[in-house]
Amino acid sequence: MRTLRLALEGRGYPIHIGDGLLARGELYAPHIRRRRLLVVSNQRILSLYQTQLQSAIGEFESVLIPDGEGAKVLTTLEQIVRQLLERRYGRDSVLLALGGGVVGDITGFTAACYQRGIAFIQLPTTLLAQVDAAIGGKTGVNHPLGKNMIGAFHQPLAVIADTSTLHTLPEREYRAGLAEVIKYGLIRDVGFVDQLEATMAALGARQPQAIAAAVERSCRNKLEVVMEDEREQGTRALLNLGHSFAHAMENAQNYRGLLHGEAVAVGICMAARLSADMQLLSGVAVERIHRLIEAAGLPCTVPAGLSAARLRECMAVDKKASVGVLRLVLLEDIGRAVVVQDVHETLLMDCLRACGAS
Amino acid sequence: MRTLRLALEGRGYPIHIGDGLLARGELYAPHIRRRRLLVVSNQRILSLYQTQLQSAIGEFESVLIPDGEGAKVLTTLEQIVRQLLERRYGRDSVLLALGGGVVGDITGFTAACYQRGIAFIQLPTTLLAQVDAAIGGKTGVNHPLGKNMIGAFHQPLAVIADTSTLHTLPEREYRAGLAEVIKYGLIRDVGFVDQLEATMAALGARQPQAIAAAVERSCRNKLEVVMEDEREQGTRALLNLGHSFAHAMENAQNYRGLLHGEAVAVGICMAARLSADMQLLSGVAVERIHRLIEAAGLPCTVPAGLSAARLRECMAVDKKASVGVLRLVLLEDIGRAVVVQDVHETLLMDCLRACGAS
Repeated sequence: MRTLRLALEGRGYPIHIGDGLLARGELYAPHIRRRRLLVVSNQRILSLYQTQLQSAIGEFESVLIPDGEGAKVLTTLEQIVRQLLERRYGRDSVLLALGGGVVGDITGFTAACYQRGIAFIQLPTTLLAQVDAAIGGKTGVNHPLGKNMIGAFHQPLAVIADTSTLHTLPEREYRAGLAEVIKYGLIRDVGFVDQLEATMAALGARQPQAIAAAVERSCRNKLEVVMEDEREQGTRALLNLGHSFAHAMENAQNYRGLLHGEAVAVGICMAARLSADMQLLSGVAVERIHRLIEAAGLPCTVPAGLSAARLRECMAVDKKASVGVLRLVLLEDIGRAVVVQDVHETLLMDCLRACGAS
Repeated sequence: MRTLRLALEGRGYPIHIGDGLLARGELYAPHIRRRRLLVVSNQRILSLYQTQLQSAIGEFESVLIPDGEGAKVLTTLEQIVRQLLERRYGRDSVLLALGGGVVGDITGFTAACYQRGIAFIQLPTTLLAQVDAAIGGKTGVNHPLGKNMIGAFHQPLAVIADTSTLHTLPEREYRAGLAEVIKYGLIRDVGFVDQLEATMAALGARQPQAIAAAVERSCRNKLEVVMEDEREQGTRALLNLGHSFAHAMENAQNYRGLLHGEAVAVGICMAARLSADMQLLSGVAVERIHRLIEAAGLPCTVPAGLSAARLRECMAVDKKASVGVLRLVLLEDIGRAVVVQDVHETLLMDCLRACGAS
């Protein structure tokens, strides 16, 4: 097991990474003594890990939410709050988010809002959640008009990332998580890109040591950024490489097409291409990025049926758009991302079309 | 005009109190330069103050929400967010909450959640909002199972309390606000109780100087408590004198009977009686409190049709109840409140019945 520590002014919490951690009671104990617990999860994930969790924290109460991005809405929050109130959970209760990014985001936001804020612990069981969603305190739900538009910054008491859970992930979901892993290398850690190129076959085969190394280095990159800029006033925005494009595609597909990580993979390719079109990045670097994304088994082009005009429209409501000005994260080099405000509309539309939008 | 300042670590904001402030542009200017504004209000209030507000900030965009406590729900938040997204409001926008406690609470909570937090300004137009709801950063909405159960601590950029708006308040609503004014005296400022006893006739007649003095002294008491304990870890809980009882009555009536301030008045009388029953407070003091509440034209007894059993049930889900343990704010003296955990069930039920519950 490796333990990283996310330190924020006056606060801080551990991020434990390793095989078999869900069952290790001593990781929970410092945070939950005598406090009432509620596990939030979905049916499929809870049935997989119920036994491990019980051996760590004993018999527990739980609330199940539906699977998938469609559950990440205010009505789910209202349902969890209903359970909390009906079962008389007080302010000193602790929520445990057992699952992927959707479970973590909605559980964290419910914890942020219930009685104006209670504690929670992240137990991420997907690659995407372990390297990204569960780290850094961003929580929230989607609005019909935009992703993650309603939310809060609310840090957990701890993150317990059991890497053995990744072995039961569906192949497509596992590979989707690799997009966020690659992202960290591209924005700020060129050595990590080298490492990923060397170990992508082992990662694809879910070789435990390769997974542990990739999760740890991803988390280390993420927490360094979050410690610098918790509230995304500046550098934290760089973590959104590919995400303005990705959110637009997901939104245009009503969250029923690409997985988030797949959309991020396409978005990264778009950002790379646009960076090259703006003379920020070399064609060789763009090629290298494409090869890495493809080696991870991820898509590089926009799915059929999405028009450039529709994507552009969805991009306009993205959080990164400030008073109508579009801000995009682009690449100056592999390992060096930058926020760009003055993207020419024509270049942007050409790029969307070149990447497969109709 | 008087200006108080609420100072919190690293942050702080002004609370302006006086006649005619809504129209004074220089009070808004430091907070809104070049930022996009959205006024949240309801039809009745906006039509009363549109002209004043325009003279301060120019033509403005607005979103109207329904009147009354029934609007303080997640679906209203979702509707305001829809307007923000459709009109492309970015992260640097500012919401202006023009109205009473409901408008302030829901606008503040929407600001807390929209894109994980944007700024807002409180423009309270009721006595209750000016002395209580708009001060201190508590925001939120109701859940069908309990009041203010979903919310956030989110401080405004400024509070602009125009006391001339109180002259247009319906009589019942104005008097309801006096309950929170009296509360400050009872929990921590015996000199204020003396002052209120001496000026209650003038206050009832809405004499401007009496109003200004009462609003200012109330705000001063509130902000002193909030500066000591922003997140209600300790002393801020004392501000809830009478509120556990009040929330239970409001909830049992589905928010369609007593106004909040009226419920607080009854709740204060209950707390006083229970304090005497527990030998904390003298019968003389209880009498004095009753006289003051009655002089303000406020009720002292539970409305017909509410049973002690139902009220007790509603009290169990109150936020002040921790893991099933009921915590109540009681009085040790006039001007000295205390949190009590070990209230005997029989004493409590007897008190509810003695105060008129069936």
